[in-house]
Amino acid sequence: MLTAGIDVGSVATKVVLLRDHEIYHLVRPTGWSPRDAGLNTFQELLQQTGYQESEVVCKVGTGYGRISLDFIDKAVTEIHCHARGANYLVNGGGLVIDIGGQDSKAILMNDEGKVLDFTMNDKCAAGTGRFLQVMAAALGVDVSQLAELAKDQQPLEINSMCTVFAESEVISLLAKGSNKQEIIAGIHRSVTRRVWGMASRFGAAKQIIFTGGVAKNLDVRNRLAKEAGAPVIAPELGQFAGALGAALYARDLASKELS
Amino acid sequence: MLTAGIDVGSVATKVVLLRDHEIYHLVRPTGWSPRDAGLNTFQELLQQTGYQESEVVCKVGTGYGRISLDFIDKAVTEIHCHARGANYLVNGGGLVIDIGGQDSKAILMNDEGKVLDFTMNDKCAAGTGRFLQVMAAALGVDVSQLAELAKDQQPLEINSMCTVFAESEVISLLAKGSNKQEIIAGIHRSVTRRVWGMASRFGAAKQIIFTGGVAKNLDVRNRLAKEAGAPVIAPELGQFAGALGAALYARDLASKELS
Ligand code: SF4
Repeated sequence: MLTAGIDVGSVATKVVLLRDHEIYHLVRPTGWSPRDAGLNTFQELLQQTGYQESEVVCKVGTGYGRISLDFIDKAVTEIHCHARGANYLVNGGGLVIDIGGQDSKAILMNDEGKVLDFTMNDKCAAGTGRFLQVMAAALGVDVSQLAELAKDQQPLEINSMCTVFAESEVISLLAKGSNKQEIIAGIHRSVTRRVWGMASRFGAAKQIIFTGGVAKNLDVRNRLAKEAGAPVIAPELGQFAGALGAALYARDLASKELS
Repeated sequence: MLTAGIDVGSVATKVVLLRDHEIYHLVRPTGWSPRDAGLNTFQELLQQTGYQESEVVCKVGTGYGRISLDFIDKAVTEIHCHARGANYLVNGGGLVIDIGGQDSKAILMNDEGKVLDFTMNDKCAAGTGRFLQVMAAALGVDVSQLAELAKDQQPLEINSMCTVFAESEVISLLAKGSNKQEIIAGIHRSVTRRVWGMASRFGAAKQIIFTGGVAKNLDVRNRLAKEAGAPVIAPELGQFAGALGAALYARDLASKELS
């Protein structure tokens, strides 16, 4: 049975085609039209994989743009899809921490991956990928270089949580001649603290499944493990957790209709 | 009797020399050393006015840098000094709203100017002068031009409160060809809503005494009056409310010691 999950985020649109244990995936920028982004990315992935649209028995949409998708069978909230996908990638439940380009969220699951509670931030750029982008620009480095530069460095103190005030602090530190790599370590600690400050309300975590663009940053990953005192696993397909969860819901839905 | 109030803020240091109803005042950037900023600004004002340091019977310090001032007789919190000064400039109590370069605060006073309650924000750049600075830079105009440009304009909707996300919205609006003056009106409404969102917990205000750098912006002032449904008075010496309050406390202190 072939099903699809379409996750239209504010920055990127992720699509998963799921057949048994086979996961096909594609990510494209969302751009101005969430509906077009969803449809085009879905069709591009069909083309890449050689499947026909008629072979897809059920399509579930998720993410902030799901309401604009008029070609799907059902829309499911991103929290539920994200947890479902994360628990498929890394079994055993625990805490999902997702740090995306413009938001961050924490989802508490039981051992079976059922959502028990969640919290999210999409109002404040601090503790999101945007914070890292602003700081990287201030430091004149690329976001992709941050992890390597901060590795094993002693973090300098960044006092402000606010992206705007922290940027000024970073510029001051540079002007004072502080070590750039230690500044970056401080920036990573700031993101980690902010996100863990939000997630730690759920208490100690058995394991953390770390997803979203920032999960690719190995230094943030290590600092998060230290801050949380728990193992942090960043699955390869973490970015597709929401789309994968949607495709799994689509499979449930189709199975029910067939039975 | 000559007394002094020294208000060392994070951005600017304000000093007032007070003799009867005569208010002498001076403002200088705080820079790296709060202590030096306080002392130098105080001495520069003495020079300008021709008074000797020995003629000043009492000196009270306030503002975030007050703890570094080793030449003062007493330190008083900025909330109390600010209210005291504001109520001296505009009689009858009410609500003081101060929007500075990096923070904002609201102080509820009774009709005699006694502080009943207060709230402040110095953690988030939204709803502070910094928000306006970032937006002015994005629009390529000077902060001093904002009020004139936004005058009588219909505000465009800016959805994000966050300075970082709002800046992206402003850049998108510009790219879409939206009217710059209506964007600025939208920016002013955003600041006003944010600050009034914080201050309105105190309920309806009899009158609002508006101080801090942003109080000079006539358009923000008008929008605040509309939002709050109360008259907004921005006294000429509003920036010196804290220093003036400190000088008034110094006068009390000296009077008590003399009696
Ligand atoms: S704290 Fe800074 S980053 Fe967060 S909402 Fe405020 S302005 Fe934005």
